[in-house]
Amino acid sequence: MEALKAWIREQGIVLGPEFLRVDGFLNHRINPEFVQLAGQGLALAYADRGISCVLTAEAAGNVIAYEAARRLGASAVYAKKGQAVTMSNAVSRRIHSPTKGIQQHLFVCRDYLGPGERVLVVDDFLHRGTTSSALADMVAECGGELAGFGFVIEKCASGGRSVLERFAVPVVALAPISRMDPESGTIAFAA
Amino acid sequence: MEALKAWIREQGIVLGPEFLRVDGFLNHRINPEFVQLAGQGLALAYADRGISCVLTAEAAGNVIAYEAARRLGASAVYAKKGQAVTMSNAVSRRIHSPTKGIQQHLFVCRDYLGPGERVLVVDDFLHRGTTSSALADMVAECGGELAGFGFVIEKCASGGRSVLERFAVPVVALAPISRMDPESGTIAFAA
Repeated sequence: MEALKAWIREQGIVLGPEFLRVDGFLNHRINPEFVQLAGQGLALAYADRGISCVLTAEAAGNVIAYEAARRLGASAVYAKKGQAVTMSNAVSRRIHSPTKGIQQHLFVCRDYLGPGERVLVVDDFLHRGTTSSALADMVAECGGELAGFGFVIEKCASGGRSVLERFAVPVVALAPISRMDPESGTIAFAA
Repeated sequence: MEALKAWIREQGIVLGPEFLRVDGFLNHRINPEFVQLAGQGLALAYADRGISCVLTAEAAGNVIAYEAARRLGASAVYAKKGQAVTMSNAVSRRIHSPTKGIQQHLFVCRDYLGPGERVLVVDDFLHRGTTSSALADMVAECGGELAGFGFVIEKCASGGRSVLERFAVPVVALAPISRMDPESGTIAFAA
């Protein structure tokens, strides 16, 4: 995953010790080459684990989940933010969005994630682990089996990895960032 | 696109004369085979038109835009719902979401869609054309050139196509639905 790290180092913009802007290739304008690299990395890490479903929280993780699912021969499921009028039979969790500064509800319909599923939870970032913990809890509530977590970028200093320890499954981050310096704009990756 | 139509006919759930649930393969649980067919269809329709950017409104259209962009050698851009703290220099429009029953703001950052872009606007559904019109207006405000519209499913009775006429560009729908009958659950496609 050195290509991914190089990409993030060159095009990511450090806005603060905890804020990295990746809008130019991952979150707002999306470079399919980057997404394919990321999806390939996550699919490789979880190959042959019997994954049937790749779960993420809309919207930032959608294409990552899709690319990983496509390569794993699985389906992707987006936990929806807000309940559409067409949705029923859902489980939900309330989470706090650090980038938007608001509370949001996540919904997963039991019709689309049920008992017998082997679920990989993915997202663009592992920060404090709040969203991913909520997703993993919803997997359990739906009767699915959590197989692991996969992230494109981990902000190691934010403590998300230890938050996810309670689930006792693998946590894979393709580009774990150990330190970001807003003064110089440099990004250091963990080994 | 007969395969797409057959899929929608078999797995789409007619909830009303204007409401079709496609949550099971397109909007909530995502079947990568369906999305690949749709992305391929839109990319074929707009091949060799110099498309540099495929624009959609998050979140339902994200993977469609991504798959079309990937095949066209373009980037995808998601108009964001709500402004993240990391976003600046944005154009915006307010739209009404018929499935959520609320007003939403769409944002596109000028840094990621600028003059010189040839833009294809895509979405999962063409219904009343409200969202797509807003996206097309934002393309113009950013100085980009609108090349056309592409949709997976068109609800022909909702009038969206005539709303988009003012933009004087092609409007492609892979699966145009002429009629949905909630009593029998049948879906009829336009020729």
